[in-house]
Amino acid sequence: MRYPSALLALIRELGRLPGIGPKSAQRLAFYLFNQPEEDVVRLSQAIREAKASLDRCPVCFNVMTRGEASCAVCSDGQRDRGVVCVVEQPADVLAIERSGEYQGLYHVLHGALSPMNGVGPDQLTIKALLQRTIGADVTDVTEVILATSTTVEGEATAMYLARQLGERGPRVSRIAYGLPMGGDLEYADEVTLGRAISHRRPL
Amino acid sequence: MRYPSALLALIRELGRLPGIGPKSAQRLAFYLFNQPEEDVVRLSQAIREAKASLDRCPVCFNVMTRGEASCAVCSDGQRDRGVVCVVEQPADVLAIERSGEYQGLYHVLHGALSPMNGVGPDQLTIKALLQRTIGADVTDVTEVILATSTTVEGEATAMYLARQLGERGPRVSRIAYGLPMGGDLEYADEVTLGRAISHRRPL
Repeated sequence: MRYPSALLALIRELGRLPGIGPKSAQRLAFYLFNQPEEDVVRLSQAIREAKASLDRCPVCFNVMTRGEASCAVCSDGQRDRGVVCVVEQPADVLAIERSGEYQGLYHVLHGALSPMNGVGPDQLTIKALLQRTIGADVTDVTEVILATSTTVEGEATAMYLARQLGERGPRVSRIAYGLPMGGDLEYADEVTLGRAISHRRPL
Repeated sequence: MRYPSALLALIRELGRLPGIGPKSAQRLAFYLFNQPEEDVVRLSQAIREAKASLDRCPVCFNVMTRGEASCAVCSDGQRDRGVVCVVEQPADVLAIERSGEYQGLYHVLHGALSPMNGVGPDQLTIKALLQRTIGADVTDVTEVILATSTTVEGEATAMYLARQLGERGPRVSRIAYGLPMGGDLEYADEVTLGRAISHRRPL
């Protein structure tokens, strides 16, 4: 027995999504098959409309509604324009916003350097970052916070950016390494624990 | 900062899918945001078209292309019409087909009895199953194989169906319990191992 072609097409398309293997794609396809028509249409439309109506902010490359001049952060007059926090993904912006600890601007790289996967500086928004932080006409950026993730790629990207930024202009900092809050020492991996000790701070 | 509304709508719709939590929904939404327009449109269309062009087989409730008289199994003249294998989901049909061990027909319940979740006999295709296996005008079904899953719900469903079918007509059987092939005894759970011993067969 073969599945109907429309079902096979759906399973194939769902299977292209990250983190969704062939089994999950099949499960999702059957789930959708069993849902009311209007729910399925709403999902289909949400996908299409999100793609059609979203764009990258021309300043920081965060996600924004298409047609607007810049994203919600860049267009907010209350933000501190002297600090730029560099992150890998738009989702990271929201994570930092939730912490309530940051009032500056952002710069979304849309990835991290990964030569093995063909991601070099030109595949990221690094040129635009340098332009807005150390470009000839920039005077007001005093600090760049490198908040790429603490993976191998994120670390390498931070090192690369520090080198590019370091010779001129703004202060460059890296988000702190250490123990996560609420974490039990016993369960921390040895690299994190080592960092937490070597980066200890006077109280 | 708030996400653009189109992005929030997409995250909400993706988050309704089974096995996709808020974090995964957000990750998928950003993934789609970063994909080429045509890929996203293709996914959106595949979802809509699958829903529009698929239907349940009127005989066995397996998935079939809308407008056809019955599914690929029911319409296959080579199949043994004397045996009906009862499964929970359309995906189970394909799993059994792949085994190559079965030549009969199917009946898809679209779930298992689960009173806690409001799933009783009327929410499944049980009435139609009884009709086609022990209905007044049925003469050729000689065996019903209960191939619901070996979960609590699947077992309860099999017991319920055996009672409903048992008094009359066809022979009723349950798929075999035992060790999975290639499985190490050491890693089998005690219930499975207990079943494998009590259901042992002479060689």
